[in-house]
Amino acid sequence: MSASVSLTALPGLPMVQAGDDLAALLQAGLARVGSAAGDVLAVAQKIVSKAEGRSIRLADVTPSPAARALAEETGKDPALVELILSESVRVVRARPNLIIVEHKLGFVMANAGIDQSNVGDEGHALLLPVDPDASAAALSARLGLPVVITDSFGRAWRRGTVGVAIGVAGLPAMLDLRGQPDLFGRELRVSITGFADEIAAAAGLVMGQGAEARPAVLVRGLAWEAPATPASALVRVGAEDLFR
Amino acid sequence: MSASVSLTALPGLPMVQAGDDLAALLQAGLARVGSAAGDVLAVAQKIVSKAEGRSIRLADVTPSPAARALAEETGKDPALVELILSESVRVVRARPNLIIVEHKLGFVMANAGIDQSNVGDEGHALLLPVDPDASAAALSARLGLPVVITDSFGRAWRRGTVGVAIGVAGLPAMLDLRGQPDLFGRELRVSITGFADEIAAAAGLVMGQGAEARPAVLVRGLAWEAPATPASALVRVGAEDLFR
Repeated sequence: MSASVSLTALPGLPMVQAGDDLAALLQAGLARVGSAAGDVLAVAQKIVSKAEGRSIRLADVTPSPAARALAEETGKDPALVELILSESVRVVRARPNLIIVEHKLGFVMANAGIDQSNVGDEGHALLLPVDPDASAAALSARLGLPVVITDSFGRAWRRGTVGVAIGVAGLPAMLDLRGQPDLFGRELRVSITGFADEIAAAAGLVMGQGAEARPAVLVRGLAWEAPATPASALVRVGAEDLFR
Repeated sequence: MSASVSLTALPGLPMVQAGDDLAALLQAGLARVGSAAGDVLAVAQKIVSKAEGRSIRLADVTPSPAARALAEETGKDPALVELILSESVRVVRARPNLIIVEHKLGFVMANAGIDQSNVGDEGHALLLPVDPDASAAALSARLGLPVVITDSFGRAWRRGTVGVAIGVAGLPAMLDLRGQPDLFGRELRVSITGFADEIAAAAGLVMGQGAEARPAVLVRGLAWEAPATPASALVRVGAEDLFR
């Protein structure tokens, strides 16, 4: 555990377009701030999705009857709802102006993570990367440092979104402190921390969401000993999910 | 929104005891690292609770029949369960070794936030502060900088705990970006961020939980324009809570 951690936005990143070599753009950004062993790069999902060509023209989408019905119920665009359903395994909650689903990747999230803000192409929607852990691994291999791909999620009982990790490579998504002594030598009993999620939330403080968005943040000063695990390890599955 | 944020543990804090002048201890810690306008102090709930004398001797607790029944169901200490129930308005989920409640403060959390690790007094349990927003306000007034009191919460659909804000003074618990333009001039539609929760999660990267715990973290480089709101603003209430 570190006594000091810093988060610095990579300066000078251009708008990312479909087909861009994102690793090369990030490498250039890293060169401008300088990176060292132990640094971690947090990257916003949006630029990963854009580079991977995950922007879909809504006019090209044909809504199914189920999508039309859910669009009616929620007041959302039927084409957008079709995309949401096609990205999901089930609808968890639907209300006017709100659709919470279980994404195919296991994430329980609004709108299957599909974004219309900051997409840049009017009439388009941006899907999550097909395999964010694989995207993180590919970026990590090219850049030579651990990578966390972040998105903003709402929470069940708390207002406001926070950054979470949807792709992780090169560091443990969770830190399991069970069995270690506490300050008084008593064994810590329930202490698995969502390490990559805390990194993503911290990066959110620098990334922003509006016109000043900064989609890549260098995180310096983290320390860990556990082996790397992907973001998929953060998903509660089956009987562990008490809030289906 | 800042291009760079740093988090630094306050060095040299002693073990906090009931009745300690926590603000004075933190002030001395701040003097060792130096603080400036715009800095925010994140403080772990445990040292606030300890200073406020919220440690309870379990042998002094008489479990009610309801507590005994729930202790039987979950395999937990009946005295601890009595404390959990007395701190809560309802049980949200109960399973072997797991009790999730709605705390009187509105937080949905395991064990009503009652801790037995790092408490220091064998046979004792540590409750949340009676009014963490008021605790944060009192510390903020004494220290002259915004204060976030943090705790580690589990999440509904994600494994691992992350830091969240249970008390906030001097900064907005949430940032409402709705109506601001996105990168392409399109209006941001759903963008209320849990600002104080992101600060708490970031501080968690430095605080740790085990023998190296660092319970106070100076956060530098944050920027905001909205007026201050308390952590209670982060609680979803009534019809907004879809996962009761």
